[in-house]
Amino acid sequence: MFAVTILGNNSALPAHERHPTAQVVTIDDRLLLIDCGEGTQMQMSRYKIKRSKISHIFISHLHGDHYYGLIGLLTSYSLQNRETPLHIYAPPGLEKIIQLQLDIVHAILPYELVFHCITCEEMLVDEEKFSVSCFHVQHRVPCYGFIVTEKKKPRKLDLKTIEAYSIPVSFYNNLSMGEDYVTSNGEVIKNELLTKPHALPKKYAYCADTKFYPPMAKIVQGAELLYHEATYLDNLRERAIERFHSTSVQAAEFAKLSDVKKLLIGHFSSKYEVLEDFLTETVPIFPLTEIATEGVTFII
Amino acid sequence: MFAVTILGNNSALPAHERHPTAQVVTIDDRLLLIDCGEGTQMQMSRYKIKRSKISHIFISHLHGDHYYGLIGLLTSYSLQNRETPLHIYAPPGLEKIIQLQLDIVHAILPYELVFHCITCEEMLVDEEKFSVSCFHVQHRVPCYGFIVTEKKKPRKLDLKTIEAYSIPVSFYNNLSMGEDYVTSNGEVIKNELLTKPHALPKKYAYCADTKFYPPMAKIVQGAELLYHEATYLDNLRERAIERFHSTSVQAAEFAKLSDVKKLLIGHFSSKYEVLEDFLTETVPIFPLTEIATEGVTFII
Repeated sequence: MFAVTILGNNSALPAHERHPTAQVVTIDDRLLLIDCGEGTQMQMSRYKIKRSKISHIFISHLHGDHYYGLIGLLTSYSLQNRETPLHIYAPPGLEKIIQLQLDIVHAILPYELVFHCITCEEMLVDEEKFSVSCFHVQHRVPCYGFIVTEKKKPRKLDLKTIEAYSIPVSFYNNLSMGEDYVTSNGEVIKNELLTKPHALPKKYAYCADTKFYPPMAKIVQGAELLYHEATYLDNLRERAIERFHSTSVQAAEFAKLSDVKKLLIGHFSSKYEVLEDFLTETVPIFPLTEIATEGVTFII
Repeated sequence: MFAVTILGNNSALPAHERHPTAQVVTIDDRLLLIDCGEGTQMQMSRYKIKRSKISHIFISHLHGDHYYGLIGLLTSYSLQNRETPLHIYAPPGLEKIIQLQLDIVHAILPYELVFHCITCEEMLVDEEKFSVSCFHVQHRVPCYGFIVTEKKKPRKLDLKTIEAYSIPVSFYNNLSMGEDYVTSNGEVIKNELLTKPHALPKKYAYCADTKFYPPMAKIVQGAELLYHEATYLDNLRERAIERFHSTSVQAAEFAKLSDVKKLLIGHFSSKYEVLEDFLTETVPIFPLTEIATEGVTFII
């Protein structure tokens, strides 16, 4: 499985039972956390996220609504006797903030905490099944977006042949993962007969907090799923520009420029109690837009 | 009104939809915040606390479950353009933690933030309608309890006379606040006829995180309401001692020693999903015990 679960979709001021930014990316049996606003650990409990499986945390920038929940999560890991090392990627300054809070009570973590300072666009993690790279976005403070790439490439189904063999739909997912099909008579139908290799690995692009910035489109080009902030509706475009944020329409225009499959919008200003209007404004420009609703998992 | 509203009643690890410690004390139209665990600002929204009315924040100690929510609250005040000064009382170290997080993004607060470092037992606030003093409790790190005293002394009802005048029960509260009663015929019955002055001002004593420590009883003696932690049930007394926490039975014994009117217990370990057993253990020793349930306001 390659998916993202939303834990927080609100901008700086928590409101309307919405929380500051946090997302969990699932890749097979691994979890990655992107941003960690206040209350992230409570949201993890609420939505049954297996927090012990998180190996890497990526913090886009040091505005509080993207990291104030980190110290609480790290402390809770300690209380839960975590032993697995934890890697944190963030712009300069976060390690000092965390260390100061641990030192003040002479806390010694039972697990290894490894800080990686992000200062330029680079490959951050390159593992067998996935990689994570970062790129500059345009915000008021140093801020990075992240691209998570799933290395295991699911195969493309050859539906004509599959139907000719009367293979049940419930097995299609296994086929795309490279499995052979065994009929009730024990006959093995080789996967290569039924599928074709996929040309491109799937990507999830997370654009953090950013103003509308068309040159960034080529970096996230072709992603299966793009997360782009939409702090305001489009009538507040001036305010968005001033504060280095984006509007609904700008997010949709950026998705169109980037030629991504699907757009996820979030980081809504607390001034909006309901969010329907965001879709009203984006869908005419980019039909496959969804609201990053808290608790919802989006398959990539 | 003199009351305390519970925003968090759990110990370090948030669980079972319970939150880390935070309480709001209401005195007339003023609000005081005692401790501020992660998510306190969200709990304030959930329970309709008018956060702008908070003038003073008291942090008992620097274990994260008592202050990790502070930076988020301070930032939100800034986003809400607070202008009223805010006073924070805490053991040494908190100002540096908060300032570092503000400095990293060059934040300038639109309101005055005044840190007061607590290093000994003293009167912290002495205003017209209330005072707050602090006292040492026995924990692993420097930790203080707080006594909030309401200076306006409600008068004692003379029930015999009141009943003789057939004054409705709904007016009893007004009588205790010194109001005269006007009958349906316009006859004024002077308050002095119906009430007597109260000898002692009402006190709320908050004992923070502490091991069972009988000598402390004389400090909170006679409080109308005592908050004492009860992290564990009494079968884990050894663990409580080791970690400088208390059990249900110890909290009840302390309340009995202190000769307080009512006991509120909280700071429950995340190992307990339900809390009924805490009352089963405390009530036989100190009958007027209540669970510090989140969202509930206890009149003092």
